Amino acid sequence: MQQRFVIAIYVENKYGVLARVSGLFMRRGVNIDSLTVCETDDPQYSRITITLNGDDYACEQTINQLKKLHNVKRVKRLETGAIAERELMLLKVNNTPENRSEIMAATQIYRANIIDYTTDTICVEVTGESSKLKAFIEVMKPLGIVEMCRTGVVALERGSSIMEK
Amino acid sequence: MQQRFVIAIYVENKYGVLARVSGLFMRRGVNIDSLTVCETDDPQYSRITITLNGDDYACEQTINQLKKLHNVKRVKRLETGAIAERELMLLKVNNTPENRSEIMAATQIYRANIIDYTTDTICVEVTGESSKLKAFIEVMKPLGIVEMCRTGVVALERGSSIMEK
Repeated sequence: MQQRFVIAIYVENKYGVLARVSGLFMRRGVNIDSLTVCETDDPQYSRITITLNGDDYACEQTINQLKKLHNVKRVKRLETGAIAERELMLLKVNNTPENRSEIMAATQIYRANIIDYTTDTICVEVTGESSKLKAFIEVMKPLGIVEMCRTGVVALERGSSIMEK
Repeated sequence: MQQRFVIAIYVENKYGVLARVSGLFMRRGVNIDSLTVCETDDPQYSRITITLNGDDYACEQTINQLKKLHNVKRVKRLETGAIAERELMLLKVNNTPENRSEIMAATQIYRANIIDYTTDTICVEVTGESSKLKAFIEVMKPLGIVEMCRTGVVALERGSSIMEK
């Protein structure tokens, strides 16, 4: 059964490791929905978060292969029901007298922030789960999306469960 | 002169393209500070945002090579003075009677949100430029960071300049 997976990976902060990780997905023919990589509080390590769709077996296989890669320290499948996950989006829409009030209203309702405002365009920052971001995009589409950029998902397990480095 | 670069890339949403992009950086011995990749409003394309440190010449060379890659549609170096850039971080800290009020105060000052709260830990979501996130990490370090996860940078040009797909 196809479902959505969130995989967290600690890697040593060395060049080449990201290419190895993404190369593995390519070889297995798996298309990643989103990928983020950034340093952790320990500059030796980066944390990669990947979301993808697939079946249980393919996911388990992928995780086992990831664990064997050079500079990969730890790999964990995060249970989607037991995590806090968030994503950030910047979205630029046309600023016209007709759509301005609608942009302002949606921004308030979605607890988004306007981070750039010119006579032509308004740039909004919005944070939340992917479903919230998708809903915001649908609201903005008829108003004229000029450009957008999403980070992809980051996730931590809820409560005191932690993923050791 | 070493400086910080932000590069935006539109790619066709096909498997393998991320491996080719990150493989290019590996071959050139360039270590990426952060990388995000996610779908755009057009599901045919994904947008990749990369930040890295290097000199002007290396950056130009890298961009020229990126443009030649299969499934890469467009590459642009974003001028750091003319963009709105943001990053998202989830950070889990120890919840003890001693540090609770300090966590709450910092959360308010940084306009962060508490998204998970248990008797052992507090999980905070914070959004901003990388320098703001770094400052927040410094405030939280003495209180006991349990785990953290950052998205890496996304950026859009200010005003009506847009990057065509």
